[in-house]
Amino acid sequence: MGQDDKIPTQVLPGFMELLPADQILFDEIKEKIKTVYKRFGFIPLDTPVIERAEVLLAKAGGETEKQIYRFTKGENDLALRFDLTVPLARYVSDHLNSLVFPFRRYHIGKVYRGEKPQRGRFREFYQCDIDIIGDGHLSLMNDAEIPSVIYAVFRELNFGDFTIRINNRKILNGFLGDLGVSDKAGEILHILDKIEKIGSEAVGELLGQLGLDDKATRKIISFVSIKGENSEIFSELTKLGVSNEVFNRGFSELKEVVEKIGQLGVPQKYFKVDLAIARGLDYYTGTVYETVLNGHDDIGSICSGGRYDNLAEYYTNHKLPGVGVSIGLTRLFYKLKEAGLIQVGASSTSRVLIVPIIKQIDPVLKLANFLRKNGVPTEIYFEEAALKKKLEYADKLKIPFVIFIGEDEVREQKWTLKDMETGEQVKSNSEELLIKLKK
Amino acid sequence: MGQDDKIPTQVLPGFMELLPADQILFDEIKEKIKTVYKRFGFIPLDTPVIERAEVLLAKAGGETEKQIYRFTKGENDLALRFDLTVPLARYVSDHLNSLVFPFRRYHIGKVYRGEKPQRGRFREFYQCDIDIIGDGHLSLMNDAEIPSVIYAVFRELNFGDFTIRINNRKILNGFLGDLGVSDKAGEILHILDKIEKIGSEAVGELLGQLGLDDKATRKIISFVSIKGENSEIFSELTKLGVSNEVFNRGFSELKEVVEKIGQLGVPQKYFKVDLAIARGLDYYTGTVYETVLNGHDDIGSICSGGRYDNLAEYYTNHKLPGVGVSIGLTRLFYKLKEAGLIQVGASSTSRVLIVPIIKQIDPVLKLANFLRKNGVPTEIYFEEAALKKKLEYADKLKIPFVIFIGEDEVREQKWTLKDMETGEQVKSNSEELLIKLKK
Repeated sequence: MGQDDKIPTQVLPGFMELLPADQILFDEIKEKIKTVYKRFGFIPLDTPVIERAEVLLAKAGGETEKQIYRFTKGENDLALRFDLTVPLARYVSDHLNSLVFPFRRYHIGKVYRGEKPQRGRFREFYQCDIDIIGDGHLSLMNDAEIPSVIYAVFRELNFGDFTIRINNRKILNGFLGDLGVSDKAGEILHILDKIEKIGSEAVGELLGQLGLDDKATRKIISFVSIKGENSEIFSELTKLGVSNEVFNRGFSELKEVVEKIGQLGVPQKYFKVDLAIARGLDYYTGTVYETVLNGHDDIGSICSGGRYDNLAEYYTNHKLPGVGVSIGLTRLFYKLKEAGLIQVGASSTSRVLIVPIIKQIDPVLKLANFLRKNGVPTEIYFEEAALKKKLEYADKLKIPFVIFIGEDEVREQKWTLKDMETGEQVKSNSEELLIKLKK
Repeated sequence: MGQDDKIPTQVLPGFMELLPADQILFDEIKEKIKTVYKRFGFIPLDTPVIERAEVLLAKAGGETEKQIYRFTKGENDLALRFDLTVPLARYVSDHLNSLVFPFRRYHIGKVYRGEKPQRGRFREFYQCDIDIIGDGHLSLMNDAEIPSVIYAVFRELNFGDFTIRINNRKILNGFLGDLGVSDKAGEILHILDKIEKIGSEAVGELLGQLGLDDKATRKIISFVSIKGENSEIFSELTKLGVSNEVFNRGFSELKEVVEKIGQLGVPQKYFKVDLAIARGLDYYTGTVYETVLNGHDDIGSICSGGRYDNLAEYYTNHKLPGVGVSIGLTRLFYKLKEAGLIQVGASSTSRVLIVPIIKQIDPVLKLANFLRKNGVPTEIYFEEAALKKKLEYADKLKIPFVIFIGEDEVREQKWTLKDMETGEQVKSNSEELLIKLKK
């Protein structure tokens, strides 16, 4: 076939595909997130990417229904999961009698949304979720533990300083109840979520369009504009003198959660009460979280979630309250690269490349076997090529060391190790070599 | 809603979903495979699960086309990948100028085939692939290195003794050429692949149906029945006196590969020449591999692959020879469990559960933070419950240690550590505790 007969291959728009150096970095980040999740006692979960459409769409409507990848196979009406929460609900409901509660799971996997492709929006992306699900009830202490996981994750990842913003939906709901606009709470919360992006004036207009009078609109905006240290915000909230029961419960929950987060070792500067945080999704019923990288508001929230009363109401009568957060890793990676907050490194995870410079291959194979057996990621350059080209291979992939094996080396049973960064070359026997490469 | 209104949730037939203890074990196996792959210098690759149907089906026909999950979204004719080799071909072809060759990649990911569901067959399953792709040419030494990776993987996994069976397609092809039946080589190889399952008599019948005369059929069957030590097989092959050039090239390649596998540290008893191995797929052109667990023929091959001349001929004029193998992990896991070759362990990866037996929570939180910071996977039992229920939680999940924190403990600043296996309880301070838990 000529080139003209070839099938065009570019990856579909909205799908991220990485070159090796990026992929290695991406995987390192994913691995670190997993390691921290495990340190907090979360166990792994892996559910099918394909589920029955009816199951996935039990609650969804509007956007989700439009975006979902849905198709039939045989007689089955199927779809690709669009998040990891619905599969969790289905899983817990399916395996109620086999699971031990509270059920703490992490799930790192791909989800699918056929959104309009645009910069930083992906149709296939990784979510890295943790959730703690209780059977009937779930202690508020879990709401405090979640931010300590977020803190540990982003300290480990070291992308820079960050702030975990915390609020409680009951405070907002109670406040709206006090104003007598509870019936519009869902829409109001949805509008308030935009305040960062569009400003309070625009939010005021939207609230007006919703039919709220000027006084209510003003009160809501001044309420979500309460800023300051956590203690200052608490004192402002007390001053409001709201007597609504839901408000008071939310307020006391928030105070409790904030106190315990500190006791769990999260320094004060990393978490902050923010009354403007609502989290659009209507299933959050208590604590809500967002996390931002300081000085990078444009990136938006990098880890969000909250408390919900009933995970699996569409699948079971069993009441399953939970709390959790999610990191949208694909978008985060894209944004971090764009902002220059991560630098890609090597295109290989090999520690050393062995370069044979004689025909005799058995000492090469033996040395490679020895190094690998001792845990050193090792490659051999087998192809016939000029020495220059072999070194270029190590150089381009940024493999840190090269070992040359020539006649002298075989006779002396000492191998020449070249540090590709410094250019330094030393001869040593296998054992000494291992020690150097293990460093 | 009443229970009757609930949406039925069972996972679709042919999709594996695991409970925590199984999932933890599954992930451990996956992790070990990855670790070995990395030790041999393979770099990670992750491609979209969804590709254009035209790309995925470039070469496929028959079964693949029937089994593939295919659907439209907007104007796009899409499909889910059915293996990791076609996406690799597409990837290498797309990124030819950005990759450094030989390109060594591993890819562990889910693939999809809408097969008729039956025991041990899955519609969604993990493949764990390695491939080495050359630019124009690729040294035969790579064919020897691949079995050394297989050996390292299955030694690490420790499922029992195994045999890597090796053959070279050129030997078979050349032998068939010598018999003058080259035009039917593809069909003959396909039939020969069944010899383990259906026996040589049935294979003879199938060859007869293909139009081969008795003499040719007899010769082929006696050829693939040549058994013995590698050296005995080589001596039988020499005795055949075949003068076909393709045969001779294959023979010399096989001898070379077998010699080098040994030099790469794979003990003789773990690899064996087997002339009956053909690997049905018609893209293999040289060395082919299968791996079986000794004494478990029913499980079939647990790791197969081979050498191919041209990976991406449907996408590029660039010649890209390669060699690789794949482990079908989902099926393997199922078969291993069925055969009792793996035992599931704990339903948690936590090392310790902290059980507060007083209201005062801050010492509990502080200790948890201390242990986690030092890398000990730690959980806290936050729920209000009888002590018995708290211990049951640790017991059911098989968390090896429990720490009690009561009034005495807080006063003494010494924590009671209970070994859940032996029942032994000791009090110690945080530092001593850490040492014990780190063991």
